Amino acid sequence: MDFISGVSPKETLELPELWIGDYEGQTVKVNGAVHTIRDMGEVAFVVLRKRDGLIQTVWEQGTTKFDIKDLHEGTTLEAEGVVHKEDRAPNGLEIRLVDGKILSQPTESMPLPIGKWKLNTSLEAKLNYRPISLRNVRERAKFKIQEAVVRGFRDYLHSQGFTEIHTPKIGAKSAEGGANLFRLEYFHKPAVLQQSPQFYKQMMVGVFDRVFEVGPVFRAEKHNTKRHLNEYVSLDFEMGYIDSFKDIMEMETGFLQYTMELLKKEYAREVKMLGIQIPDVSKIPAVRFDTAKKEVSEHYNRAIRNPYDLEPEEESLIGKLYKEKTGSDFVFVTHYPSKKRPFYAMDDPEDDTYTLSFDLLFKGVEITTGGQRIHDYNMLEEKIQKRGMDDEGMEQYLSCFKHGMPPHGGLGIGLERVTMQLLGEDNVREASLFPRDLSRLTP
Amino acid sequence: MDFISGVSPKETLELPELWIGDYEGQTVKVNGAVHTIRDMGEVAFVVLRKRDGLIQTVWEQGTTKFDIKDLHEGTTLEAEGVVHKEDRAPNGLEIRLVDGKILSQPTESMPLPIGKWKLNTSLEAKLNYRPISLRNVRERAKFKIQEAVVRGFRDYLHSQGFTEIHTPKIGAKSAEGGANLFRLEYFHKPAVLQQSPQFYKQMMVGVFDRVFEVGPVFRAEKHNTKRHLNEYVSLDFEMGYIDSFKDIMEMETGFLQYTMELLKKEYAREVKMLGIQIPDVSKIPAVRFDTAKKEVSEHYNRAIRNPYDLEPEEESLIGKLYKEKTGSDFVFVTHYPSKKRPFYAMDDPEDDTYTLSFDLLFKGVEITTGGQRIHDYNMLEEKIQKRGMDDEGMEQYLSCFKHGMPPHGGLGIGLERVTMQLLGEDNVREASLFPRDLSRLTP
Repeated sequence: MDFISGVSPKETLELPELWIGDYEGQTVKVNGAVHTIRDMGEVAFVVLRKRDGLIQTVWEQGTTKFDIKDLHEGTTLEAEGVVHKEDRAPNGLEIRLVDGKILSQPTESMPLPIGKWKLNTSLEAKLNYRPISLRNVRERAKFKIQEAVVRGFRDYLHSQGFTEIHTPKIGAKSAEGGANLFRLEYFHKPAVLQQSPQFYKQMMVGVFDRVFEVGPVFRAEKHNTKRHLNEYVSLDFEMGYIDSFKDIMEMETGFLQYTMELLKKEYAREVKMLGIQIPDVSKIPAVRFDTAKKEVSEHYNRAIRNPYDLEPEEESLIGKLYKEKTGSDFVFVTHYPSKKRPFYAMDDPEDDTYTLSFDLLFKGVEITTGGQRIHDYNMLEEKIQKRGMDDEGMEQYLSCFKHGMPPHGGLGIGLERVTMQLLGEDNVREASLFPRDLSRLTP
Repeated sequence: MDFISGVSPKETLELPELWIGDYEGQTVKVNGAVHTIRDMGEVAFVVLRKRDGLIQTVWEQGTTKFDIKDLHEGTTLEAEGVVHKEDRAPNGLEIRLVDGKILSQPTESMPLPIGKWKLNTSLEAKLNYRPISLRNVRERAKFKIQEAVVRGFRDYLHSQGFTEIHTPKIGAKSAEGGANLFRLEYFHKPAVLQQSPQFYKQMMVGVFDRVFEVGPVFRAEKHNTKRHLNEYVSLDFEMGYIDSFKDIMEMETGFLQYTMELLKKEYAREVKMLGIQIPDVSKIPAVRFDTAKKEVSEHYNRAIRNPYDLEPEEESLIGKLYKEKTGSDFVFVTHYPSKKRPFYAMDDPEDDTYTLSFDLLFKGVEITTGGQRIHDYNMLEEKIQKRGMDDEGMEQYLSCFKHGMPPHGGLGIGLERVTMQLLGEDNVREASLFPRDLSRLTP
């Protein structure tokens, strides 16, 4: 019998230790994967890739047990050497090798030049070699930015009294109805993959008052556009005891403010590496749907074709117009028409052809849909009847309202879209580790 | 045009503000749902349920615009009243109502006595009325404990240099092979729901060195036991540059130590409410599979029926034996037989009928499976051949090894099982908001 005590001291150093500490002239051990090799014969510069960045090592003939010919792109090793300041090396340090131990060897050469600063290959090639192309340091940095968005969302909401929940992805019925659902057989019963945790998060408002969830959602949409994925990560929250749907927009703005600060503070390296301009979110303009539609039509001399919804081009122009007017990369578009919103959306008591709902546009792309929900059982039943819908499968959802629900609302944020817009990418697939679309089911 | 600035000051107070501040004799506003009513005629005690707990309000005839008959279990209201110390009230405070505003009304009376301290109904009834039964304060507290486990996992791993990833749940192929997979059609192509993020997290070790994911996994197992769910939340991590598979057990132990402290510090209310004994995880015993099997057989005079795997009863007895021997609720069982582990498991170089792998038992129930993985391409191919498996659909996974992978390993933890064992429940469904099993697909 042995005991495990939660500590495992390592002889090797990580990059932040090397950057912060004073190791000049000292012999240290560092492990990593060979990222690039510049072989000059008797001397070679071998750059190692570690989780926090790159470190240059210098090999000189006769100083190590291994030969430079034993190192290849993708070899992993534990290097041992003396630390020296070197302005021309990444992060101003290099390690002059005195020894080293090879941990593993690749069997084939890299299919993509991942050692280059920018991986100038097509999106198609990047996705076809996804686990390899992500080894490029700028490619992987995109997903540190994505991590910051998720951390910002959770940490901010936690500080605001929200409870994190986990709701099932397989169900008998989905919130948004029949279209666009992936279907499967669940032990001889028909089932669907959830398009959104909508019903579940509303039910949990009756329990925890404020809840959030970060999880996958599934949409069998036959779109093949630059901004649609068939599986994506949704950042959802729902909050009770709201005074108005404005509370939801304030909460989202608070999250964005928190996240932009987090990016500046803890992700400065990746922000700089990717040249990201952190948007100013100190205040975000909000404009009514009908006003925005009219403004864009007048300002850009563009006929209104569909009065009930925004076309992607209109969203883009609203983004442009409000950037000019206010300097903001974000704009809330409020009061969407009832006929384009789901049955549970709260109609505006002042004009029930509109709802107390909103989308948030970020650089002209919709990243959020949210709004106040109906909390009164009779009002909800009336809406269901009016739409000719069927209660079947919604018994538990409806039971919440029978037994009392506070005024509430919430939203869903598409993680990959926020990431895409922060990065300034034009295809949402750039912001998904393993995108799922009409034709892509692997890797 | 309006501006949203991320702030929305409220007139109402939350419970932590009331508990910490000195509001004695002051008039405050508090919102909440009516949890219980004790109507004595001219006076009534109305307990409100809020996200942080309960607060007693006292209604007296003639002091408020609403009548006590207007309040029902499930009514939500904004109460206004004067704060007074009252030892007999929950948390030692009560609010003597001077006014109030009803926010919403239920239309039916509660199907379960959720206002009681313990909800003494069957699991079946609790699950059938899930969104209502969770309104019981002890029922919902279980999911605050669950929240702490997830927070502990993420925060600890973040502090250890791990990157959070999100991998797809729909795929063409799964890591563990054909059995027990839910199948669906993905735009006319056959697809499966992932049983585990195994392939993805390994591929991402080549990118980020250390990764973790919290997400749903799907298992079409036809078990209907007290410890199986067909969809559950898996806490997964995978780490590169390990010296041995012990590093993985150390990391898990570190996570458990961090989480138990988090429970004590930030979830003390729920821990007390549920009577949870926080286990001592300062050190966790580790014993070989074959030794443990033999010890249990001898100690409890029990024949060994299957030398290659542990029966649930054996796990339970190993837990019992090591509790007696060491006082620990946890025990690592190491070196599982190769024939019961997947192809990617690293065999023990000293005896290849065993693997460098482990399970972690918590009070005799398996909550984790983990181990070192094969990182050498040729060794992996050899194992695949030996098992008569097919490479098809694994090209991208295998490409990682062709292009170099560090020694690595990882584990998966069943969130609901950890929660169940912390709570001392005997059915894992108690630890899932909306469990999915052979017969349960709703709510």
